[in-house]
Amino acid sequence: MEDTHQTAGGAAGRIVPALTRVEQVMQAVRERIAARALAAGARVPSIRAMSEQMGVSKSTVVEAYERLVAEGALAARRGSGFFVAGQGAALARGKIGMVGMSGMSTMPGPKIDRAIDPLWLTRQSLETDARALRPGCGWLPAAWLPQEAVRRALRAIARDPRAQLTDYATPLGLPALRQQLAWRLGQHGIEAAPEQIVLTDGGSQALDILCRFLLEPGDTVVVDDPCYFNFQALLGVHRVQVVSVPYTPTGPDLAAFERVLATHRPRLYVTNSAIHNPTGATLAPAIAHRLLKLAEEHDLLIVEDDIFADFETDPAPRLAAFDGLARVVTIGSFSKTMTAAARCGYIAARADWIEPLVDLKLAVSFGNGELAADLVQRLLVDGTYRRYLDGLRAQLADAMGETLRRLASAGLTAWTRPQAGMLLWAQLPGGLDAAQVAREALAHGVVLAPGNVFSVTRNAASFLRFNVSQCNRPKVYETLQRAMERAATPA
Amino acid sequence: MEDTHQTAGGAAGRIVPALTRVEQVMQAVRERIAARALAAGARVPSIRAMSEQMGVSKSTVVEAYERLVAEGALAARRGSGFFVAGQGAALARGKIGMVGMSGMSTMPGPKIDRAIDPLWLTRQSLETDARALRPGCGWLPAAWLPQEAVRRALRAIARDPRAQLTDYATPLGLPALRQQLAWRLGQHGIEAAPEQIVLTDGGSQALDILCRFLLEPGDTVVVDDPCYFNFQALLGVHRVQVVSVPYTPTGPDLAAFERVLATHRPRLYVTNSAIHNPTGATLAPAIAHRLLKLAEEHDLLIVEDDIFADFETDPAPRLAAFDGLARVVTIGSFSKTMTAAARCGYIAARADWIEPLVDLKLAVSFGNGELAADLVQRLLVDGTYRRYLDGLRAQLADAMGETLRRLASAGLTAWTRPQAGMLLWAQLPGGLDAAQVAREALAHGVVLAPGNVFSVTRNAASFLRFNVSQCNRPKVYETLQRAMERAATPA
Repeated sequence: MEDTHQTAGGAAGRIVPALTRVEQVMQAVRERIAARALAAGARVPSIRAMSEQMGVSKSTVVEAYERLVAEGALAARRGSGFFVAGQGAALARGKIGMVGMSGMSTMPGPKIDRAIDPLWLTRQSLETDARALRPGCGWLPAAWLPQEAVRRALRAIARDPRAQLTDYATPLGLPALRQQLAWRLGQHGIEAAPEQIVLTDGGSQALDILCRFLLEPGDTVVVDDPCYFNFQALLGVHRVQVVSVPYTPTGPDLAAFERVLATHRPRLYVTNSAIHNPTGATLAPAIAHRLLKLAEEHDLLIVEDDIFADFETDPAPRLAAFDGLARVVTIGSFSKTMTAAARCGYIAARADWIEPLVDLKLAVSFGNGELAADLVQRLLVDGTYRRYLDGLRAQLADAMGETLRRLASAGLTAWTRPQAGMLLWAQLPGGLDAAQVAREALAHGVVLAPGNVFSVTRNAASFLRFNVSQCNRPKVYETLQRAMERAATPA
Repeated sequence: MEDTHQTAGGAAGRIVPALTRVEQVMQAVRERIAARALAAGARVPSIRAMSEQMGVSKSTVVEAYERLVAEGALAARRGSGFFVAGQGAALARGKIGMVGMSGMSTMPGPKIDRAIDPLWLTRQSLETDARALRPGCGWLPAAWLPQEAVRRALRAIARDPRAQLTDYATPLGLPALRQQLAWRLGQHGIEAAPEQIVLTDGGSQALDILCRFLLEPGDTVVVDDPCYFNFQALLGVHRVQVVSVPYTPTGPDLAAFERVLATHRPRLYVTNSAIHNPTGATLAPAIAHRLLKLAEEHDLLIVEDDIFADFETDPAPRLAAFDGLARVVTIGSFSKTMTAAARCGYIAARADWIEPLVDLKLAVSFGNGELAADLVQRLLVDGTYRRYLDGLRAQLADAMGETLRRLASAGLTAWTRPQAGMLLWAQLPGGLDAAQVAREALAHGVVLAPGNVFSVTRNAASFLRFNVSQCNRPKVYETLQRAMERAATPA
């Protein structure tokens, strides 16, 4: 900080007054309205989309929109954002198509607006009321999770006089859990000492800390197409260029990968190990090997998110195992297979990266929650979790078979038959638009996951991601059928 | 992300290959060695300091140092970083003074290196073994925290059939806790609806999310001099210019503040409300009022960290109360007064900022831990916490009086007498160097907090921050005395 401070004076000239940034955004919106790119009643781009488009902070966009409302150019509707003001705006709203680059439709109402925005599905899955069905949701229903085991572990912590109930965790996190994780990673061929493992408050925080360590704004990052939608949202926060490589049933398309490496010189590749989100595919050993060779040739770093490890029946290869944690970092969490109410994730990385990673973790969070780590550790050691997983895998295999059958009879085609896990990537018939089908279904209380939420290139418009653990109710298929019919009939 | 993707191709030319960045760092180190700025045995700047100095990622610095080790230019010592290789390096090490801008001494050993680095104290407080005494630590001893109340709340959660033990939290976080917080903020005159409150995994994450929302790299941020040391570490992660304004016993020096506003046009001011860290001072109403007028005139945003609210006996004014959450954001957490093992904090902000703040929170963490929020909520409602606080305040008042007496007889001068809380800012006699005294004390198992850890301008070399709840053992004062004597005698 000291040198930063010393240069602060010199930096003053470089700083554009906030007022000007605000006015730049106001002007951009006025111009779009003047050019009819935004008609009366049209939703203006979301705060986030506009701040990305203009390269300004979100608060600057908020201030600009607020001033435009004060001017009467825009109208704000609580919960559903900002619209172009004007006669019959409310009536016109329904008739206008997609607006700007924000990937948002202009249909009214807070819940249906986000369409294929990466955060749309997050909000839908987390917000929609309890009676809604969530075949598009990315996690297990509470009833499928080890509720009673978590309850017992909490009682055990409350009873344990040695339990650490009030203090901060040590910088790396609970040693007993890091030892467990080192052993578990070893089972997947990943050699990581407990001192190479840093605990975090979940897998997203693990990736966020790694991005801060590995990336500079403007760096390029490769993701799979399709990929876990929140990779896009998180990388967007880090102001990096995101490029994508088509994913195949055995891993990324290596020819396309090599082209991207040559053209964009990416710094980092972020992917899933074990079971790929959203496709449910698994990496083939030969692809893993060739991918690592390419990474070495082009000095590419890799983060593999192992969050679905415990769903696996036949373990897939881990890039970190082949690479020995040289240029590959493994992250994981127990939010999908144990509990998301106690956030606990981890980073396993090369020894000389741990110190700066811990510095970053402490600076931005002052350490992970020890209670969550203790809870996870107790479930891992007492055998309950292992027995639970055995039952869960069988349950998921049945649900996978059943969902594949029902979707086939509904006319959808599975892109691949996943070996394990809860995710299924399926294509709609007759070029139906998944975003449209998802909007129709949502209006009837069923949350679907349209393919373009997962696609950086937006080339998965006819795909849906299903979670087989959330697909056991007939209403899912009835609603899907009706939504497909409505999407098929021109408005 | 879509537009980001579309511009990715165009960006390829802008991207500097990682290899070149690595070589730039290697060259900078070689030049310093050649210029004798780094002598044999000298510690090279820390990974973090070097990445700030060179404006490259930390992983780039690690790679550069690793290659210099391979070349034989540097030597790596596990746990204590990188040193200039050469004859008698180990012997020479002890004799060499401060190196570069990293604020690090060159004394060997992992624990004593960080000196006045903002993260030094964090590591010391979290890492040092359980037998060490921590008068410089920023939190209460476990024995002073409501262990049994936390234990009872955990049992209650484990018993409660309606307890949410496995699901993700809703985007804003547990409604019952947000209602409690709205009521508590109201007690301090801050009008915030539950919908204006976002739960986080602790206060640091709350500030981190706000920095991402409010700041662009290169923006200028004002902090107090001295200020909570982790503000410096966290703001460093956001690549902003940090400038400071002297803090007085009644708040920031407004004349200096106005000069900083005119010169540096800062976007944001980050400070503590209620009880100031590290000085224990409280803001005077007149200062608060004039500060807000200045903020309006210069379009300055303010984050006030209310983490010590519950230590207060006579509530101090809140900037957010005067301002009505227009340009002031309040953050807080229960890590200091209830438990740090279950991380739970919050942001209270203007209504139109909540949506983008929640988007950011979901993108980087996928939501806060519901179990921690439930635990805090139960302690807030059942009255245990209120009764605990009554006892704690009395206990702290006694400890404050006793610590003031003992430090006075040790020759230290209190900068101000805090109205409440655990923090005490005191000056060493005879221009003794607090960093030196802290190093001496640490070697004897006592963690002190040297003033420059808290000072952006490093102008608090003769000050120490004491935590009166950690100062009740005679060994603290005996060790302090001996350390002062050793620091007084020239080596």
